[in-house]
Amino acid sequence: MKIGVITSGGDAPGMNIVIDTVITLAPQYGCEIVLIKNAYKGIIEEDFLDVKTIQHLNYRNDGGTILGSVRFPEFADTELRKKAVKILNSHGIEALIVIGGDGSFQGASELSKLGIKTIGIPATIDNDLSYSEKTLGFDTASNFAVEAIERVKSTIISHHRCLFIEVMGNKRGDIALFSGLATNADVIVIPEMKKSYEQIVAEVKEVSKRQKYIFIIVSERTYDLEKLATMTKKEANIDTRTLVLGHLQRGGSPSIFDRILGMKFSYKAMELLSQNATDYCVGNKGDEIIAVPISEAANAPLKRHDILEKIYKKIEKGKE
Amino acid sequence: MKIGVITSGGDAPGMNIVIDTVITLAPQYGCEIVLIKNAYKGIIEEDFLDVKTIQHLNYRNDGGTILGSVRFPEFADTELRKKAVKILNSHGIEALIVIGGDGSFQGASELSKLGIKTIGIPATIDNDLSYSEKTLGFDTASNFAVEAIERVKSTIISHHRCLFIEVMGNKRGDIALFSGLATNADVIVIPEMKKSYEQIVAEVKEVSKRQKYIFIIVSERTYDLEKLATMTKKEANIDTRTLVLGHLQRGGSPSIFDRILGMKFSYKAMELLSQNATDYCVGNKGDEIIAVPISEAANAPLKRHDILEKIYKKIEKGKE
Amino acid sequence: MKIGVITSGGDAPGMNIVIDTVITLAPQYGCEIVLIKNAYKGIIEEDFLDVKTIQHLNYRNDGGTILGSVRFPEFADTELRKKAVKILNSHGIEALIVIGGDGSFQGASELSKLGIKTIGIPATIDNDLSYSEKTLGFDTASNFAVEAIERVKSTIISHHRCLFIEVMGNKRGDIALFSGLATNADVIVIPEMKKSYEQIVAEVKEVSKRQKYIFIIVSERTYDLEKLATMTKKEANIDTRTLVLGHLQRGGSPSIFDRILGMKFSYKAMELLSQNATDYCVGNKGDEIIAVPISEAANAPLKRHDILEKIYKKIEKGKE
Amino acid sequence: MKIGVITSGGDAPGMNIVIDTVITLAPQYGCEIVLIKNAYKGIIEEDFLDVKTIQHLNYRNDGGTILGSVRFPEFADTELRKKAVKILNSHGIEALIVIGGDGSFQGASELSKLGIKTIGIPATIDNDLSYSEKTLGFDTASNFAVEAIERVKSTIISHHRCLFIEVMGNKRGDIALFSGLATNADVIVIPEMKKSYEQIVAEVKEVSKRQKYIFIIVSERTYDLEKLATMTKKEANIDTRTLVLGHLQRGGSPSIFDRILGMKFSYKAMELLSQNATDYCVGNKGDEIIAVPISEAANAPLKRHDILEKIYKKIEKGKE
Repeated sequence: MKIGVITSGGDAPGMNIVIDTVITLAPQYGCEIVLIKNAYKGIIEEDFLDVKTIQHLNYRNDGGTILGSVRFPEFADTELRKKAVKILNSHGIEALIVIGGDGSFQGASELSKLGIKTIGIPATIDNDLSYSEKTLGFDTASNFAVEAIERVKSTIISHHRCLFIEVMGNKRGDIALFSGLATNADVIVIPEMKKSYEQIVAEVKEVSKRQKYIFIIVSERTYDLEKLATMTKKEANIDTRTLVLGHLQRGGSPSIFDRILGMKFSYKAMELLSQNATDYCVGNKGDEIIAVPISEAANAPLKRHDILEKIYKKIEKGKE
Repeated sequence: MKIGVITSGGDAPGMNIVIDTVITLAPQYGCEIVLIKNAYKGIIEEDFLDVKTIQHLNYRNDGGTILGSVRFPEFADTELRKKAVKILNSHGIEALIVIGGDGSFQGASELSKLGIKTIGIPATIDNDLSYSEKTLGFDTASNFAVEAIERVKSTIISHHRCLFIEVMGNKRGDIALFSGLATNADVIVIPEMKKSYEQIVAEVKEVSKRQKYIFIIVSERTYDLEKLATMTKKEANIDTRTLVLGHLQRGGSPSIFDRILGMKFSYKAMELLSQNATDYCVGNKGDEIIAVPISEAANAPLKRHDILEKIYKKIEKGKE
Repeated sequence: MKIGVITSGGDAPGMNIVIDTVITLAPQYGCEIVLIKNAYKGIIEEDFLDVKTIQHLNYRNDGGTILGSVRFPEFADTELRKKAVKILNSHGIEALIVIGGDGSFQGASELSKLGIKTIGIPATIDNDLSYSEKTLGFDTASNFAVEAIERVKSTIISHHRCLFIEVMGNKRGDIALFSGLATNADVIVIPEMKKSYEQIVAEVKEVSKRQKYIFIIVSERTYDLEKLATMTKKEANIDTRTLVLGHLQRGGSPSIFDRILGMKFSYKAMELLSQNATDYCVGNKGDEIIAVPISEAANAPLKRHDILEKIYKKIEKGKE
Repeated sequence: MKIGVITSGGDAPGMNIVIDTVITLAPQYGCEIVLIKNAYKGIIEEDFLDVKTIQHLNYRNDGGTILGSVRFPEFADTELRKKAVKILNSHGIEALIVIGGDGSFQGASELSKLGIKTIGIPATIDNDLSYSEKTLGFDTASNFAVEAIERVKSTIISHHRCLFIEVMGNKRGDIALFSGLATNADVIVIPEMKKSYEQIVAEVKEVSKRQKYIFIIVSERTYDLEKLATMTKKEANIDTRTLVLGHLQRGGSPSIFDRILGMKFSYKAMELLSQNATDYCVGNKGDEIIAVPISEAANAPLKRHDILEKIYKKIEKGKE
């Protein structure tokens, strides 16, 4: 069986490990890998690579994706999908491994209906897929968030400042919640535990009564950071700054957690394809690797971290 | 309730997070924490600390344990245990949180029989407790192993050498298996997949036919590293070196995985004590936190990593 | 002799090493150290600390400054300076070691005229003091800039983007020039080599003809980053993003270069004071430590890095 | 002019930066670079590479050397050198840039006498070339030594142990002296400041009276580490361990200091060759780049770090 591989959506550390692992495992399953550049767009443009072309490159443990990734909203069009299937067929490609997030999985599901066997591998630093405990890249990205927060701490403490740090999350608070707890942040603001601007500023003001410096971790797209800073400066009378970690969170060599997870996901994807499964995505529940129909994965109830939220509330209460 | 806290056995990154978290959470449960230095020995020596004495120290995210840890084989003596209980009682200490490995848990179990409520929190870089998927410190230690292996790679490749790298494990191969797979090592040697000296050297010789440099990750106490190197040099005719990561693996600030795990373990320990549970140890199954009677934990069947072993075998086969 | 120590201006990695080293060396010179909090303001507020109060803290290799630093423009007032001298005298403090930048040195020079023996130690990540080859913190900060630029590279390459990265410099281009060359940036923009907005965008456009991704390192306060991005997007038709490293550059444990430099500066300061020198600042010319009158240091001609600028121009030309 | 480039002796971080920089600069001088693999041996074996073969590899900032390096004592033979010159001539190679240490420079000097224009670039982590303040790789290696020493500290402190850490140096104490001072080691042992076994153990014993843990940094090949540990255990009655950093010190991506130094060395080498200089090696005095005849460099008086040795002695005295 010829299997195409694409990386789609935002890049995440660990994507290259998956590419390398399926290339290595494929012959053991009597399969052949065809690399496709630039996500779904690369299918339409027939931008295919033989695995030999990248064999001498030392890309396996690099961040990003050696295959590239681009947005391609046009792929929502059924005609274009049919064209994609025709092209894949013409190259003898019967199956597709799609490394990406939920948007990318939808494309995979549609191609499955058109006869291509598809398996999704969850790779997004935001950890915003509820059917799997972890997505590839989250551990690496949140480790960096911790490192960055601790790096900036000394200067904020030295100057008695208040700092709002925005971390990524794509409307999900996991990076903020995990990195905020890990660094003992004074206030954590995530979409899953909504607060009004006034509430946040009131909390910061409360902290300012017992401490000369304050750290607030805010999940991206949750609030206007500058507005928060301006309100805080005014209400709590403290020199307030902002820091947006931004694209720094996407980079770096994957952590051992993400490497091992990526290798296991790759193995499961190959196992599923060798059993003629299609329209599935893989995920994890701890050490165990699971496979879930894509439609079911899409409808999984929002993942929450109950214990962590309880810990956060208890810590907050203890500080009062 | 007054709760004593000790760290026992080999230190592991994350121990300090647990100490800090139980101190923070205790008042929410109407409890008070008493810090005990130098493991079980500190009980006998009444080497107790009030939490206030460490509050101004910035120890939370440091490796090691601020409470110290020493070997204390004398504690196997029942009389000494009874003395320990008497001392704890005289200080009003009704419960004990023991942060350490299986040896430390046995002590906790014995104290439980003598009337002290005890909860074990698994902290050992070796990941050698089968009842829990992960132990505190393993993620940090194995991340460092990966970093060290990659750091040394360039010099080995530059000089066309063969390198045997010994990582820790305490008769268990997890650090070796995980870090070896993560770094794409040529050969991985762990106690769970035994090989004779001759087999290992034969494998290395095979690799030397297709590569000018070779990396072999060996789990500690599995083989005599120098003997392996000497045999390899002779049989495969390649300049062969050895590297023992040793105590470097114990250090460093805990990864976000270990920090979050440590906080959850702490929370579970406090919950258990508040429900009057005793003789339990906490652990994890993925995101979920579990509690297991210590005797049951001690008898858990040996944890294996089936998927990883299968991946390793397939990769090996693919290279042939 | 009683010597006061302050850290003043923006904090820089290495400040704490200097504090620790002068505390350690002082008794060898028959001197005693008095720690003063929050820069010059702390003198007026008599916010003094005995060295014993920080001895148990593990602050030596931390970023930031354990003494704190605040802006205090009021100190330009002669009356306030006289008051400061009176306070210092009342505590028996005859000398002052001022760890900071040129603004801080001016204050030291003025206090010297009023009878306090003062020595300046250059600590600022911007490397913006021309009399010394290096200032404390620059090596650490520029090492981080390199790390950050390399971290963000993979995501920019994966998505075929153009990224403008702003690094610190306080109107000086050293962090940008050094980190830009070290990471092989496509375009480097520093105040010492002025270019118009149009020139920069034209250069980027040129790069976009041969590459699918582009990195531009810009020294802070040199250009409006967003304006550059908007112009580039329009002119070169490439998805363009911006990243401001900001306060992240101030943090982190000092590099070995900064630690050794800090220790040598501290030694020289103690030597100078023991010889009754005043109104001097210390600096380096390679391994050698120099001492320069503060007024002379203030008038040193602008430091340029001729070889590096030539290398940059040759590299740019080679790419055309 | 066709210029050959070799890396010779032990590898050092920064070698690849030099290779990349001379490749980039060469056309600006009307020159062409020929890459030669495996040091002097590669000349004899005519193991030459065109620069195009490595252009797509992302090697520039990697540790090690992409050209490889092997020991080749046979090159001491004059006949073999004449053969090398004949081979170089037959390929039109008139000049040779030799990246390595003093042994490598001697070969370059001999080839110069036989008509090949040669320039040496000092690259060795040991910093053991006295004519230059710094050699390529020293800053990176000693930064790692600091990181490793600090990483291992927490476990040694937690268990109240004494640790002897051996760092590299090739009979020179720079890595030990710099990293020992930077980490505030209790005892530093370097060949430039000889001590008997008994003296060292006596010093350690002295430290053991005021501290529960002890760090001793020892320069490689200075003493038998195990003998020191055994003597210490016996004399000072403290649990004593050893750690050999070994090849870990050679690896890692070069620090910004080494990158910039490597680029400047490369520039100077090209300038010298374009002026028809030969038998020179480049070096630095702070920011300034110097050129010294190889014979003169070989006879430079042993470099000492007076201020650092004085600081160490004063710190030691202060501790008594």
